[in-house]
This record gives sequence, structure tokens and C-alpha cells, in this order.
Amino acid sequence: MSERSLTILFVVPRATALPPEERRAQILDAADPLLRQYGRNVSTRQIAQAAEVAEGTIFRVFDSKADLINHTVVRSLSAERTVEQLQHIDTDLELEDKLVQITMVLQQRLRETFELLHALGPPADATEEDRKQFGQYMTEQNQLVTAAVARLIDSDQDKLLLTSDQTVQLLATVTLTVSHPMIARTQGVSHLSDDPEALVDLILHGALVDSARTTQRFDHRAADPSPLDLSACPATP
Amino acid sequence: MSERSLTILFVVPRATALPPEERRAQILDAADPLLRQYGRNVSTRQIAQAAEVAEGTIFRVFDSKADLINHTVVRSLSAERTVEQLQHIDTDLELEDKLVQITMVLQQRLRETFELLHALGPPADATEEDRKQFGQYMTEQNQLVTAAVARLIDSDQDKLLLTSDQTVQLLATVTLTVSHPMIARTQGVSHLSDDPEALVDLILHGALVDSARTTQRFDHRAADPSPLDLSACPATP
Repeated sequence: MSERSLTILFVVPRATALPPEERRAQILDAADPLLRQYGRNVSTRQIAQAAEVAEGTIFRVFDSKADLINHTVVRSLSAERTVEQLQHIDTDLELEDKLVQITMVLQQRLRETFELLHALGPPADATEEDRKQFGQYMTEQNQLVTAAVARLIDSDQDKLLLTSDQTVQLLATVTLTVSHPMIARTQGVSHLSDDPEALVDLILHGALVDSARTTQRFDHRAADPSPLDLSACPATP
Repeated sequence: MSERSLTILFVVPRATALPPEERRAQILDAADPLLRQYGRNVSTRQIAQAAEVAEGTIFRVFDSKADLINHTVVRSLSAERTVEQLQHIDTDLELEDKLVQITMVLQQRLRETFELLHALGPPADATEEDRKQFGQYMTEQNQLVTAAVARLIDSDQDKLLLTSDQTVQLLATVTLTVSHPMIARTQGVSHLSDDPEALVDLILHGALVDSARTTQRFDHRAADPSPLDLSACPATP
């Protein structure tokens, strides 16, 4: 082997000796931001460069670009990272503060999910069966998220009229409404504030003017209305 | 003309002399319950019989069975009847009672909408553009409904921390969640009660145990959990 080829090997390592699973993860991690930026028009060459692998490596690991995109979506929308973030929330926090932190994590997940799905759009050849399978996957991942949230507030049962599961459902629903127009799209504007503190205040204390509360922590009305970016919303009945 | 043919004309009027718009409405009204029962497998003969017109009349009014189905869906999901129902609610009712009546009307609209959409399923040849147009139509109709609700509670502004539009959005969102698994499907069960009174109580007074309230009107926890019929739910991310 000549000195020159050694230099090239050193400067441009053709393939790091990663185990297959790590190689895969490396490619998927590199693909995620590129998909958000370029959508389905991203090239495998761009992904290969970002992942620092040869383009051929991609096709040894994935069947096609479409297969790579599918695996990226599945990995990026997995509950894993969200559940990790939730596990970092201090269970000894006051209920209201804890719910605010939970809401922020849920909002981040929602926004990242819709950012990716909006950038990609549905696959041109998606069947009704594909849609169902994708819905099933999202259901499973969301169940992992809601279970993690419920565990966080189980210790606050005496303070709530609702069970942990009920509280999570109410919080998740209202968070979805204010954070993304999946539901609010039917009105074209989001009237409710997307401020996590205002949202939690509303859920815990209700919408009624309560003379027993000496101060209202939030001017809920100030938020009405903010226009929504409906372009990011899947068109569904 | 013989006596016999006169009798036949009298007993079996081939075509009542309705103006075209009424003929059309008559056919669409007859098609609605048949579509809910038989889905897209309904025959134009069944619809003609129910509408008491000749089968050929249908094809003079509509291009095809698919065209008839589309027009039935558009008519059945129009806001018109819901807005009429809302207009019958007494604006002088107590806010809480008024919201309960509003919630009942919204629930009925939601359930009838999903019943029809579930019975039909998406057209086999629906394009992304078709989905968008349908979404746009539903948006317009829902805006008419939410505007009618907002008008009903405008007189209660001093009792609420939220604007009328914000209150409607909160009410509509939570009603949707408890009345149909479009959102709750992500959990597979509906934890929150679909009782309109419990729902309004939650929205107005919040989820927190409030020592200042001497009695809680509802045992919210009793509702948790009821399994949902996810089969009726469009599979969407």
C-alpha cells in the first residue's frame, strides 16, 4: 500500500467499522434534519454526506430512498425521546408547575411531529392500508407518552377531580388544539393561548370568573385570536 | 286514453310535478338514511323507491351514483340544521344550562357526521385534492356552527375568563374528544365522560379539587375508562 493511499484512507475513511445497528442509526439521524428541510426531494447523496458514509452504504442498509424515509419517520416519531424528557421532570414539583413542564414536552413533540409530516407530505402511492398502519404506529407511541405523563401525576390524585388518565387526556387534547390546528383548523384561527402556563391554569381552575380567586394569573382573553398556519395540517374530515 | 290507463296514472303517478330543486332535495333526503345503512353498496333503485321517483329520474338530476352520494354527503353535513337547532336554545338560560344544551347539539352533529362518513368510507378514487376540498367544506360549515354558538354566549361575557370564541373552541375541542375518538383514538379509550353536564362542569370549574365548592356536582372519575369504537375513526396521523 502506497503512502498516498494510506493518507487517503486516513483523511477520508470510507466506512467506519460501526456495527450495523449503529450505522443505521447514524444514517437515520442524518436524514431527519434533511427531510425537514428538503422533504422528499432530498437526495441520498445529501444524506450520505451528512451521515459521513458512502452513498452505496445507504443502499446496503435500506432497500430504497422511500424505505430510508419511512424508517426515518418511524424513528423520529417514536415515543422514546419524549418519554426520556418526561422522566427528567421532578415528580416533587407542585402539580401546576409539573403540568406546565409536561405541557412543554407535549408541545415540542407535537410541533416536531407536524413539522416532519408537513415537510414530507403523504407518500404519493400511500394506500388506505398504509394510512391505517401509520395511524396504528402513532397510537402505540402516543400511548407510551400518555402512560409516562400519567405516572408523573399519579402522586397528585388527591388534588384532582379526575383520574391521572382523564387528566392526561384533557391536557393532551387542549395542548393539541392550541399547539396545532389539527382540530382548530375547523375554525381557521386558534383562539386559545398556546402558553403552557395559561393552558394549565385553564384546565385546573376552569373558564368561569371565580370571585373566590383574588387574582387571575392570566389574561386568557389577550390571546384571541392568533391565525394558524393551516398549510401544515393534513386535510382530513 | 282508456279508462284503465287513467287508473294506472292515478294510482302510480310516474313523476310528481315538483320543481327541480325540490325533486333534488327529495332524492337526497331519501338517500341519506340508506347511505348510513348500506354505505356505497346502496343501489339507485333503492334510493328511487325511497324517494318515490323513477330510477331514471335520478340520472336526469345527477350525473352518476357517485355524484348523488357526493351531493348527499354535502347536504347532510351542512351546518344548516345544526344552526337551526342552536337558534332554538333560549339565550336567557343560565350559562351552565345553556352550554349543556349547546354541547348536546354539537354532540349530535359530531355523531351524525361520523356515522355517515364511517358508513361510506372514503371514495375509492379520492385524490389528495378531493380530501382538501372536503376538508375545506367541513371547515366552512363548522365555522357557521361555531359562529352560531359564539352568538349564543356573547351575553355571558362578564361571567367568563375567555372570549366567546375561546369558549367555543374549548367546548368544541373537548366535546369532540369525548364524543368521538378522532383524538382519543391515540389512547384507545375515552377517559373523560361524554355526559354534557359533566363536560360543561369541567370546562367552567376546572379539574382541581376546590375546597371552596361545597359540593361537586359530578363524579368525574366514575367515567374512566370507556372503550371506544375505533373502527369508526378515519386513520389519520
